[in-house]
Amino acid sequence: MLADGPEREDGRTRVVIEAVEPQVDGGRFAVKRIVGDEVEVRADVFADGHDQVAAHVLHRGPGDREWRAVPMRPLGNDRWAATLVMGAEGVHRFAIEGWIDRFATWRSALGKRVEAGQDVAVDLLIGAALIEEAAARAAESADGAVLARAAAALRGADREAAVAAALDSGVEALVGMHAERRFVTRTDRDYPIVVDRERARFSAWYERFPRSSSPQPGRHGTLRDLGRLVPEIARMGFDVLYLPPIHPIGRTHRKGANNAPEAGPGDPGSPWAIGAGEGGHTAIHPELGTMEDFARLVESARAFGLEVALDLALQCSPDHPWVREHPQWFRHRPDGTIQYAENPPKKYQDIYPIDFETEDWRSLWAALRDVVLFWVARGVRIFRVDNPHTKPFAFWEWLIGEVKAAHPDVLFLSEAFTRPKVMYRLAKLGFTQSYTYFTWRTTKAELTQYLTELTQSPVREFFRPNFWPNTPDILPEHLQVGGRPAFVARLVLAATMSSSYGIYGPPFELCVADALPGREEYRDSEKYQIRHWDWNAPGHLRDLIARVNRIRRENPALKATDNLAFVDVDDDRLVAYLKASADGGNVLLVVVSLDPDHRRSGRVRLPLARLGLGPSEPFLVEELLEGDQQIWQGEANLVEIDPRAMPARIFRIARRLRRETDFDYFYM
Amino acid sequence: MLADGPEREDGRTRVVIEAVEPQVDGGRFAVKRIVGDEVEVRADVFADGHDQVAAHVLHRGPGDREWRAVPMRPLGNDRWAATLVMGAEGVHRFAIEGWIDRFATWRSALGKRVEAGQDVAVDLLIGAALIEEAAARAAESADGAVLARAAAALRGADREAAVAAALDSGVEALVGMHAERRFVTRTDRDYPIVVDRERARFSAWYERFPRSSSPQPGRHGTLRDLGRLVPEIARMGFDVLYLPPIHPIGRTHRKGANNAPEAGPGDPGSPWAIGAGEGGHTAIHPELGTMEDFARLVESARAFGLEVALDLALQCSPDHPWVREHPQWFRHRPDGTIQYAENPPKKYQDIYPIDFETEDWRSLWAALRDVVLFWVARGVRIFRVDNPHTKPFAFWEWLIGEVKAAHPDVLFLSEAFTRPKVMYRLAKLGFTQSYTYFTWRTTKAELTQYLTELTQSPVREFFRPNFWPNTPDILPEHLQVGGRPAFVARLVLAATMSSSYGIYGPPFELCVADALPGREEYRDSEKYQIRHWDWNAPGHLRDLIARVNRIRRENPALKATDNLAFVDVDDDRLVAYLKASADGGNVLLVVVSLDPDHRRSGRVRLPLARLGLGPSEPFLVEELLEGDQQIWQGEANLVEIDPRAMPARIFRIARRLRRETDFDYFYM
Repeated sequence: MLADGPEREDGRTRVVIEAVEPQVDGGRFAVKRIVGDEVEVRADVFADGHDQVAAHVLHRGPGDREWRAVPMRPLGNDRWAATLVMGAEGVHRFAIEGWIDRFATWRSALGKRVEAGQDVAVDLLIGAALIEEAAARAAESADGAVLARAAAALRGADREAAVAAALDSGVEALVGMHAERRFVTRTDRDYPIVVDRERARFSAWYERFPRSSSPQPGRHGTLRDLGRLVPEIARMGFDVLYLPPIHPIGRTHRKGANNAPEAGPGDPGSPWAIGAGEGGHTAIHPELGTMEDFARLVESARAFGLEVALDLALQCSPDHPWVREHPQWFRHRPDGTIQYAENPPKKYQDIYPIDFETEDWRSLWAALRDVVLFWVARGVRIFRVDNPHTKPFAFWEWLIGEVKAAHPDVLFLSEAFTRPKVMYRLAKLGFTQSYTYFTWRTTKAELTQYLTELTQSPVREFFRPNFWPNTPDILPEHLQVGGRPAFVARLVLAATMSSSYGIYGPPFELCVADALPGREEYRDSEKYQIRHWDWNAPGHLRDLIARVNRIRRENPALKATDNLAFVDVDDDRLVAYLKASADGGNVLLVVVSLDPDHRRSGRVRLPLARLGLGPSEPFLVEELLEGDQQIWQGEANLVEIDPRAMPARIFRIARRLRRETDFDYFYM
Repeated sequence: MLADGPEREDGRTRVVIEAVEPQVDGGRFAVKRIVGDEVEVRADVFADGHDQVAAHVLHRGPGDREWRAVPMRPLGNDRWAATLVMGAEGVHRFAIEGWIDRFATWRSALGKRVEAGQDVAVDLLIGAALIEEAAARAAESADGAVLARAAAALRGADREAAVAAALDSGVEALVGMHAERRFVTRTDRDYPIVVDRERARFSAWYERFPRSSSPQPGRHGTLRDLGRLVPEIARMGFDVLYLPPIHPIGRTHRKGANNAPEAGPGDPGSPWAIGAGEGGHTAIHPELGTMEDFARLVESARAFGLEVALDLALQCSPDHPWVREHPQWFRHRPDGTIQYAENPPKKYQDIYPIDFETEDWRSLWAALRDVVLFWVARGVRIFRVDNPHTKPFAFWEWLIGEVKAAHPDVLFLSEAFTRPKVMYRLAKLGFTQSYTYFTWRTTKAELTQYLTELTQSPVREFFRPNFWPNTPDILPEHLQVGGRPAFVARLVLAATMSSSYGIYGPPFELCVADALPGREEYRDSEKYQIRHWDWNAPGHLRDLIARVNRIRRENPALKATDNLAFVDVDDDRLVAYLKASADGGNVLLVVVSLDPDHRRSGRVRLPLARLGLGPSEPFLVEELLEGDQQIWQGEANLVEIDPRAMPARIFRIARRLRRETDFDYFYM
């Protein structure tokens, strides 16, 4: 009934490795980091009995042929750690190996025996044999001779010299270098880390419709017009200039202004109804300009520190060339028509969704990848992906993997405003950044709950939030009613809570609050018509945005998201949080009023000990939005906010007033 | 550089399955349940887009040839669940499959279109085709004709009849039964559940040295003597009678009384120094009796509802037959001696540990398994495993798996008083129950922290605690100084916090507090000498133990451990917790005083809403240790404890006084 004995490779493998960090879903997906990050790999490593174990992390960066071993150090309670430095962009992998350290076990026991005054004659013989084994393995190098001499000392007649040689730390180090690792346990799998350039984690996005960029009202804007605005956009401090789709727009069932089912003769249609006689996803809408104009825009934006990001909306207008060339990529109905987009009972007749259940899915996937590669070849390295949650997860994992394998600098932003598990799955499978629920999280409780989830739960390893106060699809209620103070508060929240954020402009800078009644939809939305914007209208936020973005660049604490820690403030419309750089050298306290109408004040309670401050030590705080300085003291300090003047404060806990001279300087 | 297209099996598999529960380490280890348990399997199941998904759990019990499908029901937020009933002992497995439910998706959209008054002519044709496909698959059964008629109705001229047929729930159910499941996603692995008999979770252990069971002082006790005590032990209400090793005891380096390095002529030695000329792990110490005596003990214990559990201590005295027959199973030193057990600088010369790193490990493992099977063949179904943490993890996983594959009713208790991760690993790999740190957790904070970890964290799925107030190795300090109140308090804590517990008797019943100075070691320990106990000495706890064990049997709330919930009581030496049966029909409140010296009183705060009680509703509580009844009302009720009288209260929240007649009855 039972076998004669165990059927397994080697039952003498005694070390166990558990609870590996960082990882996502047991290593199924990658954790995300940026170039230069230090990653502390941790795991429980232990064996039966009292023998000492040793372990190392094996690390292989993109392009590395060999694994590099980094020794792990014990943290106590059977936990071990090693720090890896993320050098190159791309997929890094690590694994962990653990084994019984026979020499260390022997040496530790010897030390205790010597201390207890026991006879160690036989123990020295055991140790001599271990050292001789290491000497044999080191025979090629100078270490071999050193080890052989040590072994001889252990076998020698001089007991004191023998014990000294046995406990010599240099000998231990040499034996370790030439250790025989028997019965090594290795993690069942390698764990991936996707390493991106810094923009993946720290980015300020500006979304703008090129067709509304004309200096003359009434004229269709062009890529050249937009190019002329680049210096202004750069002056506001943005890194990414994101354009809604720039492809030819379909004519069949084109929508009119305010989403009217029938377009009038002059209506330009929705840019998301992609494809017409002039071409599809690899063509440029003729009224916007040419491929050369696009190249020039990319070039001039780059000169101003801005990257052009394109919209990747995988859907077609009825006039898209693919409808004719690849009819099998669309779903056909029994009456011979092609299924248009629907969310019953709503109908979107100007758009055909792609049928990812087509028998021809392999060619379809390749064609969609080639669209991305087409624009990559034209200098685009960032894609904002429209509604990724309506295309299969497996497709995205493959597409992003394929593109990044060849171009690890390409970044993908997931515009998935959908159920939480779907959003997180998209992030896990490779999206670099993700839109979030921030847009609708407005109360202190909501913001606290959501930011705690994003920054403290396991999602922090794979979900990089990008906070948008508004988008062309969403003019949220609080911006419709809150006026300028609400726009400023949401700007500061987005730009300081999250290291990536974006606005849809110019409606944001101009505090446009004009919505269709009872909806979150802009009236006269640019999605369906061309608008002309007066950037210099009174009350615009351009200078303030420039200030906020400069504060972001100058303060390392704002270049990460998961370093956020809420602090208590005794007013439930004031929200306060600390952000600190990894080295602790840059600490900001942000206080934002969620009340756009009334003055608010509250005592902010700081964790002084965590900040390295004594209970009654005075310290200097510098407010960065308006530039004033204050001396604070003790745990609780009063913050007063008049939203009409400035609904937010960004304090830099600038310096500690440890020496009298600081006071002198301050009061000078 | 890039392939022409995706290299994968089918990119149209759109459903994702995540976050499967219950599981241990992603399915690497089994969760533990008992026969009759209902297991709710839960997972996130979702797809891209708006299509409806469906899922089922596949379940295969031990011996089942086929998987049985149990449909999952949606819980909201993309979470799904199905309930499996654990029928037979052994290893059950489950997997999850999910797919797009094309018909439900179509039907739901149709309903919305009909409601919006849209033309659904083409939609009815699509649905008719889906129903016809199901009809074709059901052609063999009567369902085929029903479905064919429904499809005909959808294609018919009568629009109202067509819509009615399309939305008919009977049609939906039939289509579901004959659904085509395309592009099914299955979990990457199966998830194991080890199902044991109830004793695995609910057990009261009594440990006793047979050699101290003689009715005459000075005579070596025998298995027959112990057999005569069985009725007394059973009367105390225990389920398991656990015997320290009963094998021949070595003579070489035998230890004397109080662990003296040299035994005197009459010293019996430690039963854990296993093996002598008379035999090893499959022999019985001649002074205890014969194999027939053992068989009779097992038999008579069973007649009184007691199972005999043996000690499995995998080590040898220098006189064990294996030392001669299998010298390669031991470690040899350069001077030709065999390595004895050590924890430097301590030496245990009466014991040779087994060298699990032997080249001959396969034969060794088989021999150790055969020891277990030898005793299984003699009616033993429970093993208390001595120091499992000093033998390789892989060995235990194999051994327990082998034994339970043939004998799923065999239970293993892990005596691993060691580091937490080692203890948990042993539990994961198969030990049925585990010793715990309870023995040293004495303050309210310690008990709260530890019980919360055991009952609320993931360890609850695999670690079944067995609480011991004392063992032959441990007479903890609080029992040395606390007197009878401390023994009673620890008894009630062990027996009501954990559904499995045990005592080492008779020292426990007799409140023996005599330790070696400054140590937790019993003076004149039975480990090294024979003791004679007067069970009827004044102050014995036998009647109280009987009462506690009867309360355990009569109250289902005490048959589980992870149903414990602490409640607030405003005295920091009083600890209070609720235990409720799964159906809520049996609710106990236990209050124990940790102060053996002084009266204590405190207000216990009950979660009335959770108990189904109104804020000012009176309710009857019945104290089970002393038998009095009280009417309580409101959230906070006073409990007073005089430790000299009774340091614990076990209240049954017996009935709600909803009707006047209850009051009448109570006040009668």
